[in-house]
Amino acid sequence: MGRFYAVIPAGGVGTRLWPLSRAAAPKFLHDLTGSGSTLIRATYDRLEPLSAGRFLLVTGDAHRDAVCRQLPEIADENLVLEPEPKDSGAAIGLAAAILFTRDPSAIMGSFAADQVISPVDKFQDAVREAIYTAATGKIVTIGIKPTHPSTGFGYIRTGAPLNVEGAPRAHSVAKFVEKPSEEIAERYLASGEYSWNAGMFVAPVKLMLHHLKANEPALYEGLMEIALAWDTPERVAVKNRVWPTLPKIAIDYAVAEPAADAGDVAVIPADFSWDDVGDFAAIARLSSATENKNVKVIGDGARVFTEDSTGIVVSDTKRVIALIGIEDVVVVDTPDALLVTTRAHSQLVKKAVDGLKAQGNTDVL
Amino acid sequence: MGRFYAVIPAGGVGTRLWPLSRAAAPKFLHDLTGSGSTLIRATYDRLEPLSAGRFLLVTGDAHRDAVCRQLPEIADENLVLEPEPKDSGAAIGLAAAILFTRDPSAIMGSFAADQVISPVDKFQDAVREAIYTAATGKIVTIGIKPTHPSTGFGYIRTGAPLNVEGAPRAHSVAKFVEKPSEEIAERYLASGEYSWNAGMFVAPVKLMLHHLKANEPALYEGLMEIALAWDTPERVAVKNRVWPTLPKIAIDYAVAEPAADAGDVAVIPADFSWDDVGDFAAIARLSSATENKNVKVIGDGARVFTEDSTGIVVSDTKRVIALIGIEDVVVVDTPDALLVTTRAHSQLVKKAVDGLKAQGNTDVL
Repeated sequence: MGRFYAVIPAGGVGTRLWPLSRAAAPKFLHDLTGSGSTLIRATYDRLEPLSAGRFLLVTGDAHRDAVCRQLPEIADENLVLEPEPKDSGAAIGLAAAILFTRDPSAIMGSFAADQVISPVDKFQDAVREAIYTAATGKIVTIGIKPTHPSTGFGYIRTGAPLNVEGAPRAHSVAKFVEKPSEEIAERYLASGEYSWNAGMFVAPVKLMLHHLKANEPALYEGLMEIALAWDTPERVAVKNRVWPTLPKIAIDYAVAEPAADAGDVAVIPADFSWDDVGDFAAIARLSSATENKNVKVIGDGARVFTEDSTGIVVSDTKRVIALIGIEDVVVVDTPDALLVTTRAHSQLVKKAVDGLKAQGNTDVL
Repeated sequence: MGRFYAVIPAGGVGTRLWPLSRAAAPKFLHDLTGSGSTLIRATYDRLEPLSAGRFLLVTGDAHRDAVCRQLPEIADENLVLEPEPKDSGAAIGLAAAILFTRDPSAIMGSFAADQVISPVDKFQDAVREAIYTAATGKIVTIGIKPTHPSTGFGYIRTGAPLNVEGAPRAHSVAKFVEKPSEEIAERYLASGEYSWNAGMFVAPVKLMLHHLKANEPALYEGLMEIALAWDTPERVAVKNRVWPTLPKIAIDYAVAEPAADAGDVAVIPADFSWDDVGDFAAIARLSSATENKNVKVIGDGARVFTEDSTGIVVSDTKRVIALIGIEDVVVVDTPDALLVTTRAHSQLVKKAVDGLKAQGNTDVL
């Protein structure tokens, strides 16, 4: 456990949560469930008992101040600021490379900053099993037991059990599959052999870099160049020179899938509840907010009056909001933009963002 | 026509139009139909060709500045500022009394500041007939031809024709009736004998005061005391001393109904379209605003994106508003309060105002 380092990639705008989540204030900086913690803070707190302060955080340059306010514990040398987005291959690969230069025996665990997980102890048990399994020389994903035939996630097919000490649930991964059709998703669910791929994985950094080098040598070379300068005065200069030249590729293609084909990937099938808070329907579902009659209200300063209404209000202002005779509504109120939609349409919020961009109203995106 | 004075009572908060209309910014100060004019300005402009600048305006003390911005033509001595609301008997009665002290032969016409009328020439034709009829010694209401069996208005039953020169439509009034049930309203509509009582009337001030004195002697005495001091340096002092002592009564009970019983009331049945803009459904109906797909948008600064939505947006801000997949919605966006409802529920907006009052959120009422 002493070799475990938690890596938190904090990226992605969360377009389907506009206008709450936006370029300047992405999803992970919000308390989307009324829990009292932002998603990124909750992610940190969930991992702290496992990594005992060993963290590496990767986020956009623009979010530096906001992230530091949320996580004052993160030292400068453990905060990787991307000059521009380069997808998860570069973000997670650089974390692996930096940790490797510090401790070649390090085991990293990568957990996105914008997910909601409970109960925390079941999550931590699964990560512990993943760490023990990783120590045997595996890249270990944590698979989520599906609760419905989602077509929005990738799936992991469980292979043979691995008999790892301290990790009774460890299995090999037979294969990763992309987001399926509903029919196929239903078959997956019925078979009991599939988990959701939540993008969480735990692995020896050495093994990560081995596969990265094999599959994406240019990316590997660039990342190693930055990593070797990281804990020197040249950190920023080298990063800013090399980063823009890196290829854009998801970590799934750069490492996880080829590693699975090589038999190097394991899975811990876990049964905590997990949500990537993909839209406002998810917020309504996950929210621990007290209800105002039949309307869930998220937001500290919100002053809400409801009558004959159902739905959810997410408020980022202190304005009075009155709902009268409106069903299944989603109201998201921010100082410069207002969204009114329904839970059933919440997957279409991206259309508003595209439409506003086309109108030239980019100041609120 | 040279004896005609237009009186505009500008009162009433317009609770069913909250949060656009409210105590500090009542209905008549808004451009509710996207015409480019506030309701009070449009009322003035409609009457100006008839009264040639002879106006008396009655409004609350608090609205002085806003009204003067809208109607810079109104001189101080023609602006009656009520220290507190005392109902229409006092407001219109004082106008009659002030005009009487200036010109005992004056004919006044009283027209509320918050109504929408078109076409203007038909309205003006009806008022001209009302003035000719008033000159024969009548209190003349202008009746509106009903377009549906409304239960929200009082009705006027037409009596015998009066054969007034220049006023071919002049009839006596058989009686005033209060807001009827739907069944009775349907009978009224079918009979063709009834008009809506729009609260508009034209009358010799002498005849108004005659009935006021007979029915409400205390009110009459108080108003005459103020009126006699009006065009003297004592105006404000006397008004502020006497006004709070006046009885509260509607002009209908203080003058119109007893005058009708005495055979002194006539009606001009008119067929222009008239709306008292009672709720947001009325705004949606009356609005001349261009449509954004199937959503009507009222408000200069509004930046609205709609997708698969129908309804109306009334914006008093420059915020971006996005509607997605929401039907028949009413969104009213102001700097400190937001209303989301449907056209079908727009009569219930008053409930929100009552509810917010009960919650203590009086700052936005």
